[in-house]
Amino acid sequence: MMKTAVLFGSSGLIGSNLLDNLINNNTYNKIKIFVRKLPSIDNSKVEVINTDFLDLDTLKEKLTGDDCFFCIGTTHKDTPDKNEYRRIEYDLPVQLAKIAKFNSISNFIYVSSIGANPKASSTYLKNKGQVEEELKKIGFSNLSIIQPSFLVGNRKDFRIIEVLGIPLMKFLSLFFFGGFKKYTPIKVEIVVNAMIKLTSGNNSEHTYSSDRLRELGSN
Amino acid sequence: MMKTAVLFGSSGLIGSNLLDNLINNNTYNKIKIFVRKLPSIDNSKVEVINTDFLDLDTLKEKLTGDDCFFCIGTTHKDTPDKNEYRRIEYDLPVQLAKIAKFNSISNFIYVSSIGANPKASSTYLKNKGQVEEELKKIGFSNLSIIQPSFLVGNRKDFRIIEVLGIPLMKFLSLFFFGGFKKYTPIKVEIVVNAMIKLTSGNNSEHTYSSDRLRELGSN
Repeated sequence: MMKTAVLFGSSGLIGSNLLDNLINNNTYNKIKIFVRKLPSIDNSKVEVINTDFLDLDTLKEKLTGDDCFFCIGTTHKDTPDKNEYRRIEYDLPVQLAKIAKFNSISNFIYVSSIGANPKASSTYLKNKGQVEEELKKIGFSNLSIIQPSFLVGNRKDFRIIEVLGIPLMKFLSLFFFGGFKKYTPIKVEIVVNAMIKLTSGNNSEHTYSSDRLRELGSN
Repeated sequence: MMKTAVLFGSSGLIGSNLLDNLINNNTYNKIKIFVRKLPSIDNSKVEVINTDFLDLDTLKEKLTGDDCFFCIGTTHKDTPDKNEYRRIEYDLPVQLAKIAKFNSISNFIYVSSIGANPKASSTYLKNKGQVEEELKKIGFSNLSIIQPSFLVGNRKDFRIIEVLGIPLMKFLSLFFFGGFKKYTPIKVEIVVNAMIKLTSGNNSEHTYSSDRLRELGSN
């Protein structure tokens, strides 16, 4: 039976790659994307749902399907207001996950980050860590938390990272205990491949490191 | 009065840039380069001295001039043998500096590294730190120890570092206390500009951080 994907954050680095992948994936016959601004996309499999993220009640009825991918994320630069940052990074994934669970979605895939930790000093990593804890309480039949390292969007940039970024990291590792190997940048397309693979498992709950995502998504 | 420069390591990233700069610099009418392999360079200001670096007595008579730039460096990859690595990274600069001092060279400029420390756990940083200590004992009238960060050779690579390397460093700084600002990569041409400026001072002894080199070499 074909599946319905639900996608939050379809305009971002991971989300846009994921959307392309889902469109070309025969396992899915429908992809619901929840958006603030209408995208230029025009594909018969894609249902665009214009969303007021400040009033999530409005999307309750439409948030149904099989696999829910949460790829929304912001930065302090794009969202300087602290409350707004917290709302996007913490409240939104937790509230949407609760609605998804209420609507019997079985697979929830959350894009966290390497180093996510509810006690981290970085707000970015702390929010992600706190979201992870809340998601685990919700009780999805299959919850996948992915923790990618530094994301690289395209082949050209990845080649550049290999030629200059890796030597830079090796240099920096001279000065910092423990080294940087696990922080090796990862290609977005590999992360996206891994995310889709995770929906066919039945792991109840699992956290995937960047290294594990690279293994899963590379073949 | 015009000066004679003495250059060790003229084929490397810093040395080759320095050689170009010295050739075009009217303060110098002679540049002596000590080499293992004859380079393709053909310039009337440049005196190429074929050197056996395993028998430094052979170069004693020729190691004369005003400003001596030591830019030799190797890597564990290029020099896997530990004794050979130590000879190049530690013995060579110390022995050549002693000959330079004996021959009344007043300015000695040594390319060290950010983080150089005689007690560092990294062999690379430890050797550099130990060399620094030995050089300070020799008593040059003007000793300049430069400690650049990660070196970037050309404008294109530097642009790439700005677009991808700096975001990568910002990302990594989430996980490491103290951050990476002082490790910001630096252009070789800026380092070389700074090195030449340092020869006209009379500082008896000074260590220049990567940030200070950027200030000195940028204008």
